[in-house]
Amino acid sequence: VTASPDDPLVTVDDIRHAAQVLRGIVVRTPLLPFGPPGEGDVTGRSRVYLKPESLQPMGAFKLRGAYHALASLPADRRAGGVVTHSSGNHAQGVARAARILGMPAVIVMPTDAPRVKVAGVEADGARIVYAGTTNEERTARAHEIADEEGLELIPSFDDARIVAGQGTAGLEIVEQLAEIDAHAASDGRPPLPPPTVLVPIGGGGLAAGVATAVKEVRPDARVIGVEPVLAADAHESLRSGRLVAWPGDRVARTSADGMRTGSLGVLPFRQLRRYLDDVVLVDELEIARAMVRAASGARLVLEPSGATSLAAWLFHAHELGEPGTVVCLLSGGNVDADRYRELIALGEAAGG
Amino acid sequence: VTASPDDPLVTVDDIRHAAQVLRGIVVRTPLLPFGPPGEGDVTGRSRVYLKPESLQPMGAFKLRGAYHALASLPADRRAGGVVTHSSGNHAQGVARAARILGMPAVIVMPTDAPRVKVAGVEADGARIVYAGTTNEERTARAHEIADEEGLELIPSFDDARIVAGQGTAGLEIVEQLAEIDAHAASDGRPPLPPPTVLVPIGGGGLAAGVATAVKEVRPDARVIGVEPVLAADAHESLRSGRLVAWPGDRVARTSADGMRTGSLGVLPFRQLRRYLDDVVLVDELEIARAMVRAASGARLVLEPSGATSLAAWLFHAHELGEPGTVVCLLSGGNVDADRYRELIALGEAAGG
Repeated sequence: VTASPDDPLVTVDDIRHAAQVLRGIVVRTPLLPFGPPGEGDVTGRSRVYLKPESLQPMGAFKLRGAYHALASLPADRRAGGVVTHSSGNHAQGVARAARILGMPAVIVMPTDAPRVKVAGVEADGARIVYAGTTNEERTARAHEIADEEGLELIPSFDDARIVAGQGTAGLEIVEQLAEIDAHAASDGRPPLPPPTVLVPIGGGGLAAGVATAVKEVRPDARVIGVEPVLAADAHESLRSGRLVAWPGDRVARTSADGMRTGSLGVLPFRQLRRYLDDVVLVDELEIARAMVRAASGARLVLEPSGATSLAAWLFHAHELGEPGTVVCLLSGGNVDADRYRELIALGEAAGG
Repeated sequence: VTASPDDPLVTVDDIRHAAQVLRGIVVRTPLLPFGPPGEGDVTGRSRVYLKPESLQPMGAFKLRGAYHALASLPADRRAGGVVTHSSGNHAQGVARAARILGMPAVIVMPTDAPRVKVAGVEADGARIVYAGTTNEERTARAHEIADEEGLELIPSFDDARIVAGQGTAGLEIVEQLAEIDAHAASDGRPPLPPPTVLVPIGGGGLAAGVATAVKEVRPDARVIGVEPVLAADAHESLRSGRLVAWPGDRVARTSADGMRTGSLGVLPFRQLRRYLDDVVLVDELEIARAMVRAASGARLVLEPSGATSLAAWLFHAHELGEPGTVVCLLSGGNVDADRYRELIALGEAAGG
């Protein structure tokens, strides 16, 4: 079921269809104004908005793609159940989606997955199988289980159903910006300047879906991917034009466990080459400082991956040219309490 | 401008009008499913929802009433500016509203206000005057300043404009529950059971507005107020049928600084006698544990006051009878980082 180079790209209509499937299942997370309203702006509108996918029921955007993929399975392929592999958030998304749909689920997770993510999977009744620490080990084990037990394999990002599901977050962003503009218009005020959407890139499912939805609906928008310096494989792939893979032990150094994917999926890579404008890289200290600012300035608990887009805005605004209206997609908030404390202390020591 | 016993009660139409005024200014905070979906519920719906007003731009529901009150002033009473008194969140609400509307603002705050709340007021450009630690001292000083400088006094809760503004949070709750039911109906599924809304009571402005909106729109709903045991004056007032006042040094003992109001306002008291079903009391350890659960289970940073309604659900569910669908209104998230760490450590030590 891995995407092939000949598959058609996911379209905005695919994403709109996924949004229908997800109605009533995922939270339509709000656009939160961040920081004080701009000087001279009497409207209460902001220059920067946060899209906190950390507020999804299992703490990350992954429920969007997982539920869409499971709900898309034909009836005769649902009964046996599903198997997937994930460092954590996709695992929780599949476990929750399977629970809602009444399907059995097996999740292959790394031995070093955050405990909070393991606990989330267990709470939703899925069976966990541990396999090493790298994406390669998990993928291989999940394929074995799919073959041995006759289960449906649900990829974590290299899949049109997943990309379309994650893209619904981008569709919401452009819809919500249009609602803000409609309020302004009814008061005789001008629309917001064109948006720049900052979105984290792990395997690329989220970034591909969001970039597609945003750019198709708003051709005046820019979509910028964000990666940790320590897991900048997508940046290298997109710059060089060929899909590179960073070894698991190399990407393992970033605190952003959700972004320790050493390579983009084939479909996301193709999708991002068409729709993504650029990639910004953030370092580990910037991620920790963004976690502090999310807590103090927006009352949000973020995991390291979830804070990367805010780090890009806070510390790399000069790389964004004329950013217009900035939207930071915050991908998730599943982080162990002790790890959270360490990273917050690190970020505060560096000035918050 | 203090409410008198002869003033008419705030109506649901007043609240609907306030909601129009607040469109595009306040965030329509989402209803977040809390905990796993109920057993046997294949819909993804929850038994418990959180309404996180901590996600408002200045971190609490107070922007609703403050902006509504300032926007309701006739043009000839706007120019000189406004003065108000507050332990913190109302101060930030008025400062932000005044900034949006381009009005000067003076805020009388206690000398022991959380630094994060003082910083919020300063960032929005309001002038701060410190006056003691009790509500009585602040109120007296604010009246003096209003007289001396010819400023419009904006009460923090005992005011029809404030109650109507805060009530918009309750209106959103019943609208959002109706949207969830509409999704279910379109799939041929039954509606959610009748709601029980848990709402914190300080001076009573929020609770009065929310109770009015919820009960007028949904006569099958219940609205339960929540107070700290250490500041249970509203509980005593509503039980005894007469408006009692607890001295400032008595209510100062609760960690919930937003609820150190020793007495309900006259208007909120009358409104609550008509619309509130009951009051539940929570202790300090329960508040700290609810702060832990909000962070770990919902990725939300809450201040102590903001966590009281969740504490009522987590630790006093047996007092709620048949709660049906529970909605916990989380009033705010403005808490100093060091105080937050202390309370989280306390809550974790008590089992989270």
